Amino acid sequence: MTKLEKGLVQVYTGNGKGKTTAAFGLALRAVGRGLKVYVIQFIKGGFDYGELYVVDKLQGLTLKAFGKGKFIIGKPEEVDVVKAREALKLTKEVVSGGKYDLVVLDEVNVALHLGLIGLDDVLRLVREKPVHVELVLTGRNAPDEILQVADLVTEMREVKHPYSKGVPARKGIEY
Amino acid sequence: MTKLEKGLVQVYTGNGKGKTTAAFGLALRAVGRGLKVYVIQFIKGGFDYGELYVVDKLQGLTLKAFGKGKFIIGKPEEVDVVKAREALKLTKEVVSGGKYDLVVLDEVNVALHLGLIGLDDVLRLVREKPVHVELVLTGRNAPDEILQVADLVTEMREVKHPYSKGVPARKGIEY
Repeated sequence: MTKLEKGLVQVYTGNGKGKTTAAFGLALRAVGRGLKVYVIQFIKGGFDYGELYVVDKLQGLTLKAFGKGKFIIGKPEEVDVVKAREALKLTKEVVSGGKYDLVVLDEVNVALHLGLIGLDDVLRLVREKPVHVELVLTGRNAPDEILQVADLVTEMREVKHPYSKGVPARKGIEY
Repeated sequence: MTKLEKGLVQVYTGNGKGKTTAAFGLALRAVGRGLKVYVIQFIKGGFDYGELYVVDKLQGLTLKAFGKGKFIIGKPEEVDVVKAREALKLTKEVVSGGKYDLVVLDEVNVALHLGLIGLDDVLRLVREKPVHVELVLTGRNAPDEILQVADLVTEMREVKHPYSKGVPARKGIEY
């Protein structure tokens, strides 16, 4: 298998667990079919996530993370803007190049929500993507304009979460 | 890393896309950390899913599928009951054995909803699992009793889906 006939735009948003993992599960499925996958992590990444230790074993999967190495808490810093724009620049190259079939923009919705990158840039990217390229945008607080241009939107709704019971994030499960 | 200090029970339910992929993404993260993962597919599987072609490349990940080779449409057949019970039997062995750190019961909620397996059996499995074992139960229509015993529940809510626009399931993306 080489190309999708028609690539769509998928959005995974909401406050529940499972957005990034759904994107990685999709990446796994796609490489299983011989599709080429590029995962670009906005905000997050650059630090210790379990998936980082295994992606190099998956032929056809490329990952680049643009996190600053810790979470953004409160007001974003200049470094957050710089890194998010680097991620956007790479995204434009990867998408317009058409070499990759599935491009995951992990946490891009958060980067948009925080104003680190411009909505117009991302909307243009979606509009001008090669037909066969599937885009997956993850992250809570996806802007309405993104939901409108998406073909598929799933809201991961938190019904119950152990953090609220004081269980800390666990290596291998939450990161 | 060998064991989780405390394994929880996670449920991914709802009518939206992303439940099985979230479980597989979690599996990927876990094996990246050196955890041992067993994915048991109720209902589904035994046929053509992209992830099947790549799991054997992931050390520490074992998958066994108990689907009959096609979807259950309408009333379940005897073969569906037989296969779901085989899946449950394996699940009991895998969970109680304690050798695996993360056990994914893919589509088990559907098997419960259709009455292919007994709720009491699954509740007992949850109650009696070794402390370090993390359980992930996926599938729409998770029974309330399952939601109650879960530590984490995410509802994948379908906001928009291309099937409703007549886009068929695509190899490498939907399966």
